[in-house]
Amino acid sequence: MIDRLIESIKKTGAPIVVGLDPTLKLIPPQITEKYYKEMGKTPEAVAEAIVEYNKGLTDAICDVVPAVKPQIAMYEAFGIPGLIAFDRTVKYCKEKGLIVIGDVKRGDIGSTSEAYAQAHLGHVTIGDQRFAAFDEDFATVNPYLGSDGVKPFLKVCNEDKKGIFVLVKTSNPSSGEFQDREIDGIPLYRLVGEKVAEWGEEAMGENGYSRVGAVVGATYPEQGKVLRRVMPKSFILVPGYGAQGGKGADLVHFFNKDGLGAIINSSRGIIGAYQQERYASYGPEGYAAAARDAVLDMKEDIRSSL
Amino acid sequence: MIDRLIESIKKTGAPIVVGLDPTLKLIPPQITEKYYKEMGKTPEAVAEAIVEYNKGLTDAICDVVPAVKPQIAMYEAFGIPGLIAFDRTVKYCKEKGLIVIGDVKRGDIGSTSEAYAQAHLGHVTIGDQRFAAFDEDFATVNPYLGSDGVKPFLKVCNEDKKGIFVLVKTSNPSSGEFQDREIDGIPLYRLVGEKVAEWGEEAMGENGYSRVGAVVGATYPEQGKVLRRVMPKSFILVPGYGAQGGKGADLVHFFNKDGLGAIINSSRGIIGAYQQERYASYGPEGYAAAARDAVLDMKEDIRSSL
Repeated sequence: MIDRLIESIKKTGAPIVVGLDPTLKLIPPQITEKYYKEMGKTPEAVAEAIVEYNKGLTDAICDVVPAVKPQIAMYEAFGIPGLIAFDRTVKYCKEKGLIVIGDVKRGDIGSTSEAYAQAHLGHVTIGDQRFAAFDEDFATVNPYLGSDGVKPFLKVCNEDKKGIFVLVKTSNPSSGEFQDREIDGIPLYRLVGEKVAEWGEEAMGENGYSRVGAVVGATYPEQGKVLRRVMPKSFILVPGYGAQGGKGADLVHFFNKDGLGAIINSSRGIIGAYQQERYASYGPEGYAAAARDAVLDMKEDIRSSL
Repeated sequence: MIDRLIESIKKTGAPIVVGLDPTLKLIPPQITEKYYKEMGKTPEAVAEAIVEYNKGLTDAICDVVPAVKPQIAMYEAFGIPGLIAFDRTVKYCKEKGLIVIGDVKRGDIGSTSEAYAQAHLGHVTIGDQRFAAFDEDFATVNPYLGSDGVKPFLKVCNEDKKGIFVLVKTSNPSSGEFQDREIDGIPLYRLVGEKVAEWGEEAMGENGYSRVGAVVGATYPEQGKVLRRVMPKSFILVPGYGAQGGKGADLVHFFNKDGLGAIINSSRGIIGAYQQERYASYGPEGYAAAARDAVLDMKEDIRSSL
């Protein structure tokens, strides 16, 4: 999958992943109203609205970006109907040829991480039949429990040719509270980065990159520079561009000299573009076209910065 | 909810939480076979088997323990049918008067943690109606992202009178890889423990304990002793007893002098008791009675150690 990601980035020329993180504030009112009328103001109606919204976005961007990243929390908040919408979103995006990064940030003790890995990347076996549950292409993983919380994911990555992105230095303001603390002069995020590199050696793809990537926020370009060196064979998934304050110029050090090695996420900045002054002329009806336009602008911003 | 937990521990005399972590190896064959015959070897059949298994366990233990802790990964592995089984399990256990700790280990940047908090402890608002998704009483939370990943949970805890248990020192063998690393001579788990105490000040219950508890593994009694002092007002959820190797004698330092402050989890050791030599006479048909017996033995083991 890491190899497919690389091919797809080369083909589109866009090291971009669009975060499909629907909230009621972002979904255009004509979509929610339609389902409210039909089904009442219920989680089921919201779930249908989310799927329609996501399909519109996916259709508009699927030829210009390699990947999408649905944030499962936004779906989980609406319970079972929300998770059905997540599942339908993953399947629809894959049908459209997009690579799907499940932003699930799971991580637990070994036997439990194995179940999460099965849920999101692999499969369960019932009798002699295999069933894949959510079947994303990549998942994000929390490293706080150490190697035996991560290794079950590696096993599934190797067996099912999937990948993970391990949280290393997150984009949020308080990420430094624990991640920046120094251990013998070395910040925790760097120790985690070193582990990412080590875990990656056990899960190499064909094109020189491993199946173990890392999450490093665009909001911390200096740390990105260090981590780029620490994990040369890991792709970096970079959130925090756009709505969280990261800019194109901040991104340069996240890439390797081959022009690869990073994929930049934007969520609200793309899927809610129609609400921004710059794309306001599209209006809510044109939310998908606005998103496409915002992707192309982001692509240009990144290109001109590199 | 922390106050209800304390009352219920006092009433049952059992500071015990039973982990409802169903796997195909644990569910007695007469249950799975019944649903396989009816529905084929499918995730839907497994989900029905999980619910029946859990109901049997719940009926057998609900008058002798205060709480259960379903591990959502075991359900998530079976996709949407599995998550429906999780939802039905939570609801059934609450009907039976049990407190439900959702072992979900969620945690993300602020706006996303807010969605997780809504999903598991709070509610979403659609129009002017409130809908609770999974509605557990407590949830486990991963602290790697720092305060702004945890505070949205505190808000919901205070509004909806719920609680969280933050991962501090986990029970798994490699938990020390990051959690034991020393920062200015102080291990990371202790720094996280200090934060738990600080967060707890913002979310106090009525009985002297806060709504912010901590997870500390029974497999690390020395660290438990330190953390007990660092977080005097936090309940400690203690996994790792039984199948993972923790013993009654290891537990003494997790409790405060008031005899409260800790709740010990056992999963396989209880729900799979019928597979152990000690309880083998019950057979698979008597799995629930075996579980009850194992709970009573565990209660005695803890009582005699304190």
